[in-house]
Amino acid sequence: MNHLSNLKCEACNANAKRLTSDEIQSLMPDVEGWDLITDQKTLKLKRVFATKNYTHSVLFTNVVAELAEAENHHPLIILEYASVTVYWWTHKINGLHKNDFIMAYQTSLLFQK
Amino acid sequence: MNHLSNLKCEACNANAKRLTSDEIQSLMPDVEGWDLITDQKTLKLKRVFATKNYTHSVLFTNVVAELAEAENHHPLIILEYASVTVYWWTHKINGLHKNDFIMAYQTSLLFQK
Repeated sequence: MNHLSNLKCEACNANAKRLTSDEIQSLMPDVEGWDLITDQKTLKLKRVFATKNYTHSVLFTNVVAELAEAENHHPLIILEYASVTVYWWTHKINGLHKNDFIMAYQTSLLFQK
Repeated sequence: MNHLSNLKCEACNANAKRLTSDEIQSLMPDVEGWDLITDQKTLKLKRVFATKNYTHSVLFTNVVAELAEAENHHPLIILEYASVTVYWWTHKINGLHKNDFIMAYQTSLLFQK
């Protein structure tokens, strides 16, 4: 059982704590396909999902957007002809919260469906 | 009357000619709000559309995607909580074709609706 399955996002504010490096490293195996990147001095999770065509890209973008609204946690999504790139991080803490790993995990599940 | 109103995208292949600097400069006033940028050595048109909320962002993304499919010319769209950023350029010629200005103009019209 993955550490992230069955977890939901928790409400997050500016006082929420960022994950430590050790916590991040222990969670990375649970989000296969996702890269840990630094963008504008902020740690983020990034995954490029290769799609079959534009219709598939648009559909997947909407499915991820629905998840985002349901959890009230919103990623950056780049919609292109044959790919959708998703970045998860927590704006309020300028870094990664456990929520971001939960969302990345859920995003990958949605792609497989 | 704007130079770009009532124009449709024309089929474009690798032999289509890029716009010259003079042609680009003469078309820029017709796409108010759009910036001419160089990204990965390629000239592109970019505009950030500030939205009211995520629902609005998702809706606008879908409207632009519908236009893209209808014209068979596809932009890069960045969907965020309160903004949608659109980049138009022509992949096949690694630069700007008149089509890109037509699409930028149409995109702005869709945002106003």
